[in-house]
Amino acid sequence: MTANRTSRPTGAPVQVRGTRRRAIRLAIVGFGTVGSGTAKVLLEHQGEVERRLGCRLELKAVCDVMKKDVSWLPRTVSVISDWKKVVADPEIDVVVELIGGTTHAREVALAGLDAGKHLVTANKHLVAEYGVELAERARAAGVHLGIEACVMGGTPLLHAVREGLAGEHFTAVYGILNGTTNYILTEMERRGCSFREALAEAQEKGYAERDPTFDVEGYDARYKITILAMMCFGQAVRVESIPVAGITHIEQVDIAYARRLNHTIRLIAGARRRKNGSLEIFVRPMMIPQASPLANVMGSINGVLLVGNKGGNTTMTGRGAGGEPTGVAVLSDVVEIARSILAGSATTSPLGYTRWQKAKTAPPGENLLSAYLRLVVRDRPGILARVCAILARNGINIDSVLQEPAMPKKHLPFVMVLEPIQEKYVARAVEQIARLPFLAQAPLMMPFADLP
Amino acid sequence: MTANRTSRPTGAPVQVRGTRRRAIRLAIVGFGTVGSGTAKVLLEHQGEVERRLGCRLELKAVCDVMKKDVSWLPRTVSVISDWKKVVADPEIDVVVELIGGTTHAREVALAGLDAGKHLVTANKHLVAEYGVELAERARAAGVHLGIEACVMGGTPLLHAVREGLAGEHFTAVYGILNGTTNYILTEMERRGCSFREALAEAQEKGYAERDPTFDVEGYDARYKITILAMMCFGQAVRVESIPVAGITHIEQVDIAYARRLNHTIRLIAGARRRKNGSLEIFVRPMMIPQASPLANVMGSINGVLLVGNKGGNTTMTGRGAGGEPTGVAVLSDVVEIARSILAGSATTSPLGYTRWQKAKTAPPGENLLSAYLRLVVRDRPGILARVCAILARNGINIDSVLQEPAMPKKHLPFVMVLEPIQEKYVARAVEQIARLPFLAQAPLMMPFADLP
Repeated sequence: MTANRTSRPTGAPVQVRGTRRRAIRLAIVGFGTVGSGTAKVLLEHQGEVERRLGCRLELKAVCDVMKKDVSWLPRTVSVISDWKKVVADPEIDVVVELIGGTTHAREVALAGLDAGKHLVTANKHLVAEYGVELAERARAAGVHLGIEACVMGGTPLLHAVREGLAGEHFTAVYGILNGTTNYILTEMERRGCSFREALAEAQEKGYAERDPTFDVEGYDARYKITILAMMCFGQAVRVESIPVAGITHIEQVDIAYARRLNHTIRLIAGARRRKNGSLEIFVRPMMIPQASPLANVMGSINGVLLVGNKGGNTTMTGRGAGGEPTGVAVLSDVVEIARSILAGSATTSPLGYTRWQKAKTAPPGENLLSAYLRLVVRDRPGILARVCAILARNGINIDSVLQEPAMPKKHLPFVMVLEPIQEKYVARAVEQIARLPFLAQAPLMMPFADLP
Repeated sequence: MTANRTSRPTGAPVQVRGTRRRAIRLAIVGFGTVGSGTAKVLLEHQGEVERRLGCRLELKAVCDVMKKDVSWLPRTVSVISDWKKVVADPEIDVVVELIGGTTHAREVALAGLDAGKHLVTANKHLVAEYGVELAERARAAGVHLGIEACVMGGTPLLHAVREGLAGEHFTAVYGILNGTTNYILTEMERRGCSFREALAEAQEKGYAERDPTFDVEGYDARYKITILAMMCFGQAVRVESIPVAGITHIEQVDIAYARRLNHTIRLIAGARRRKNGSLEIFVRPMMIPQASPLANVMGSINGVLLVGNKGGNTTMTGRGAGGEPTGVAVLSDVVEIARSILAGSATTSPLGYTRWQKAKTAPPGENLLSAYLRLVVRDRPGILARVCAILARNGINIDSVLQEPAMPKKHLPFVMVLEPIQEKYVARAVEQIARLPFLAQAPLMMPFADLP
């Protein structure tokens, strides 16, 4: 009898070398886009997965289907309305939580873990808020927890970080982790259209929600960078501690100026380790050099740049959403867990660390940055003099001033590139500039990304 | 007692939940660039790794150091000359084989596995030739086998394929897996120099060996694609069955014509699954569209494009060689194995599959390709007519003919782009063209890569 086996309340037999298990069974709770995508991927890849595992992987039940069409599911799959029956079923090994949110989903997840079910979730919100708790409960119950689908669903980022680079010491990670905003920014770039137009198109194509706030204001990316930063640095990062800025203030004129500066604008969710060990984490639009791999992440695709102390830069790009791509990530976790069940493995660390440090967040404003500052003014003499005086008073040097010709006098945009200085001085200067009487709209400040 | 424990001849205690192991110990056999790189990475990242594992990872011994300087190693590390002592040491959990080659290395690897040591290797040659045997021996001995460093050392490709995408059904994989050839090709591009000049520079900078055959003729990439294809498709691919072509015949004129066609030349190691399940595997220079992520893999960096049935395209770029990057990959495997030891896990499948299919290699020549054909002729009337007649006789349509102005008459290069057709017809036509009396040198044929 294995050490693991004693702790499995389901009583399901664990493989001992030489013996064989008939099948490993899963249930999907929450049957929206990702739930049905996962079921489809499993049904289609069942043979391939079985050759990998040496054991059959069976979808035994789906739960919480609401009014979704389930007629295409094989008759062997039970359709259950009460999730408690899933958790209580001794034949189910793995519960896949695809409900979303943190109330009902958390209840299901915890009940599953406590009942000795292995858990797979695509719920970034849940893992970002309660990841350490879930990992601890999984450890206590002797079961596995899979979270690959929470960040860049469809692209194997989290396994690469946790296992493939388990020997690395990360110094920074920069990601384009939200497909909606990247689609909007690259459409503004490609078509020369406004934010509003690109958003409307994204909504039409199903890349953006009717209420796009969660995506365009950066909240989605913030959950994802929380998880990624925890896994790269082993610090218990808190979601709300991360400053977030979205892309709603980016205008076509910024795209044009970025191009003139050989840059492009991307919403970057990043985390970097300072020399004293503290972390600087942020979600904000940034100016990215055109030659950077992140500048070439187009449309709804996601991309990430991992910076290691000894292995250098690794980049990954791929899907970050969608039913079937996310289903691939969910199923990959189920396969990994099935391997662990077959190998009699006790739980390991789903977030990559067993010993957590309290998050040491770098004091805001002390980061060095070189800023892009776009002002829109009602033109009259003396404007530049007053703006420059404010910058000088805050100790900020100007690298260059750009102004496209033939712009309207009443709504004249121009751009200043500032030399590197701590952000707090730039922020204070921007606040003072914002109060100048000739400003036609609020100034926009974006940092140039300081990528390795 | 765990199932695993009974099979560990070393008698080292395996963690049972709640108890704790003092340390997991490794020995490095073979102490060249990668061996010392691995030791350096471990010593520097020891604290970080310990926080991940919840257990100390100790370098206990290095072996086969030849005349290398080991004075920088801590006194706690034994320097051993006889590898049999490493294998016999009951305190050593993990043997890291970094000898290279397939004779001595294979002997050490098999002896280690048979003695119940977990094995990590960076030896692509060994794994490409004997991977299935090693995996089987590891399974029989109840130990783990780590191979991450064999392909793109420093970039977590193999973990991403085996675990992160364990639920995917791959349809193709295309890689730039050799840094030397990529450095040469991108230098030819950047500086406009010849193959010889770029090679000499690569040798000077240490990117190429004095005898560069292994790299420039594609053999190194062939070992790597063998491993990658096995892991993506679960077929027992044999190295020698893969046709290989190197980059020695690429000239500056080809780089220039590629650019004119909005392409760039890369040595691609690829494998794709045909509809009938057979595999087409190859190593050859190809024309890559400039917009492809693979075209933007520069210098000695490696890159790979994985194509999945449901998750779409995933690209990864990063280091593929070098002592410390490869050391990161080796150490990551050691950490993963340590996690498995602590979790009481029996062996899993290091190549990703437990059931192997015999390799079904697609019959050569039946692949469709659109070809770039570069001819160098002694100019005289009627040349194009004769070449075109041969192409027509083989049923090949011409898409376009390109000729740069002001080229020397006695050594006149021109290029034809051929419409898609099975390769065997192109090969036959090229053979016939090669015999034409006015040819100044052998023709060069390269396919346009048909990337998704």
